[in-house]
Amino acid sequence: MEFHLLKPLLKEANTKIIFLIMDGIGGLPRKQDNKTELEAAFKPNLDVLASEGTCGLQIPVKMGITPGSGPGHLAVFGYDPIVYQVGRGVLAAHGINFDLQQGDVAARGNFCTIDSNDIVTDRRAGRIPTEKSIELCRILQENIHIPHIEVFVRNEKEHRFLLVLRGDGLSSHLHDTDPQDIGKKPLEPRALQSDAEYTARIVYQFVDQAKKILKDQLPANMVLLRGFSVKPSWPTMKECYGVKSAAIAAYPMYRGLAKLLGMHALDTGETISDEITTLKQHWKEFDFFYVHIKKTDSRGEDGNFEEKKKVIEEVDQFIPRLRALNPDVIVVTGDHSTPSEMAAHSWHPVPVLLWSKHCRPDNVVQFGERACITGSLGPQFPAVDLMTLALANAKRLDKFGA
Amino acid sequence: MEFHLLKPLLKEANTKIIFLIMDGIGGLPRKQDNKTELEAAFKPNLDVLASEGTCGLQIPVKMGITPGSGPGHLAVFGYDPIVYQVGRGVLAAHGINFDLQQGDVAARGNFCTIDSNDIVTDRRAGRIPTEKSIELCRILQENIHIPHIEVFVRNEKEHRFLLVLRGDGLSSHLHDTDPQDIGKKPLEPRALQSDAEYTARIVYQFVDQAKKILKDQLPANMVLLRGFSVKPSWPTMKECYGVKSAAIAAYPMYRGLAKLLGMHALDTGETISDEITTLKQHWKEFDFFYVHIKKTDSRGEDGNFEEKKKVIEEVDQFIPRLRALNPDVIVVTGDHSTPSEMAAHSWHPVPVLLWSKHCRPDNVVQFGERACITGSLGPQFPAVDLMTLALANAKRLDKFGA
Repeated sequence: MEFHLLKPLLKEANTKIIFLIMDGIGGLPRKQDNKTELEAAFKPNLDVLASEGTCGLQIPVKMGITPGSGPGHLAVFGYDPIVYQVGRGVLAAHGINFDLQQGDVAARGNFCTIDSNDIVTDRRAGRIPTEKSIELCRILQENIHIPHIEVFVRNEKEHRFLLVLRGDGLSSHLHDTDPQDIGKKPLEPRALQSDAEYTARIVYQFVDQAKKILKDQLPANMVLLRGFSVKPSWPTMKECYGVKSAAIAAYPMYRGLAKLLGMHALDTGETISDEITTLKQHWKEFDFFYVHIKKTDSRGEDGNFEEKKKVIEEVDQFIPRLRALNPDVIVVTGDHSTPSEMAAHSWHPVPVLLWSKHCRPDNVVQFGERACITGSLGPQFPAVDLMTLALANAKRLDKFGA
Repeated sequence: MEFHLLKPLLKEANTKIIFLIMDGIGGLPRKQDNKTELEAAFKPNLDVLASEGTCGLQIPVKMGITPGSGPGHLAVFGYDPIVYQVGRGVLAAHGINFDLQQGDVAARGNFCTIDSNDIVTDRRAGRIPTEKSIELCRILQENIHIPHIEVFVRNEKEHRFLLVLRGDGLSSHLHDTDPQDIGKKPLEPRALQSDAEYTARIVYQFVDQAKKILKDQLPANMVLLRGFSVKPSWPTMKECYGVKSAAIAAYPMYRGLAKLLGMHALDTGETISDEITTLKQHWKEFDFFYVHIKKTDSRGEDGNFEEKKKVIEEVDQFIPRLRALNPDVIVVTGDHSTPSEMAAHSWHPVPVLLWSKHCRPDNVVQFGERACITGSLGPQFPAVDLMTLALANAKRLDKFGA
């Protein structure tokens, strides 16, 4: 529902909503037993939630469209991902608390490996450790010089870094230099619109200097850039939904995304247990909690069915601690599917369960892709409607019209 | 479907459509047997209709949005309730045949009870009988005097009345004075837009005088106003769908709503039997019949599961009389859900059955919330599409394109 239609219906309520986002949760069946990761997992607590609640499958963007992490999350939070587009650069900046200013152009960088013919052989430079990446960022920061432009190179996590260009007349309308595949050369910096010709030349200088500086740093002997973007100005969750919201996410990018929506990004640890502890510690301060589980997606992207299944099983064990907080609404879903079999994000609908004290239970008794097809939310419903439904279940909406 | 797309497809047919609207039909399961009102009711005739027809659940406005009666009905009749918005005042005026003129501002009034601190203790003044309300309306009509303004106070039914203000420079952009809850004071008349400052002062005078006049009339010692509105000008059912339509509704507000869409509001009695008799009497004159059952909603709002179930069982017994008329299409649904457990309108999807001589039956053999989930209309389809589907089943639409 569009925010301006929702606004007059918002009302105060002393209720709490949890969105448990298991990144890339949806999967595909493996051969041996024809079960997906979610179907194969032993997850009695999620299954109880499903049988007490309402289930379905959501479409983050459009049927057949594979969402990136940004659009997938925005949709789940009720922000139409076609209207609210943001580049990875801005997400990266928010994730590491970089103070992005109006006019800055940000990009997400990867250290990568190229061979003697400039062909990319590893897009992630063997996932070099964060310490190594910090050192390489410092070297780039100290040695790259571009006239009239202030350059910031900051480590994000592992092989990932943030590049920010600051100066007059910059534009983010640039094509990625990341070819998105091994066996290809990095792409030349290229303007998507004519206002970005100058910026394309700046980026060319950055990449050219970086390549020279990194030439002896195998496996991290080159950089790839993507998601050139500028800071957006969007309505906050408070403005749209009247909720005081907190994000609990171990990974910087997801904290960054949450902050773009005005969520308070809470400090937390690396593990699921740390995240649930953080949830409990801040339970009284907020009324909407976004809890992000990264490893379902990571293991899916690794193509590791068994490990993705284990992450789901681990999450399941924390459900009793989550219910013990006495939330009014629990939504469990993902930002997209990441089938291990494909080792990549996919377009497949994402399983959802919505549990609340006032939901109308359907006949679904298992939280799985095929079980959810017959749920009352439907097998293909728009993810952007989920937030309105959660607010309704939390009794935070007045009726529409007389 | 937008009206301009439908218009070129309309064709004449000697077919008849019945929309049987059971107000607030959808519910939630009670604890004792995990059944909703509709699931618990003995309704063999509706179940036969369901098994011969197609079923599903509709969303009147948007997922998670709780519709008022107006938007819920408009949606079922194919009028997008976000585009076609009307206040309760206008509905009330139409319902009692008050000849609302351009520039008039109408509001729905309730007689209510306030204590010595002006706190509302009963928003409906104990549902005073209509005779008492008629007398109080007469007293207000005779004793309220506001310079330059003509005031009309007319009884609607029980504690409900219509207020119409007539004069130059009036605006309906006013906040309700009804606080929508007991334990609160009536709200001060307040302009929502600056063009209504003058009208807010007029309403203040009305409320102030009414309070003095009613001070010894316990339990009806105060008034609450809501739904300030002016007469809209909408396309009629005839213009949109080519049907000659009649409304059969015991309650004034629903006749009012029907008249806004150009339906002919037939005189009828208080009971379901009276309504079905009226249907039979006028069967030859019209080709679209809207039959409204109020008490499913009333008993739901009372929180009375057993009585709501009984109303459904009563309606069921009239289905054979309805089928004996040999209609071409029968649609049974509601304008929204009113679960007894919540004693209020809710956002939950509304069960629908569409029976016709040309429908494609699905596997649903019971008319109930969970049975309808697997129906061929889907578990979450937009109510505004229902009317087009009914016209198709009545063979009143040509094909689209060559």
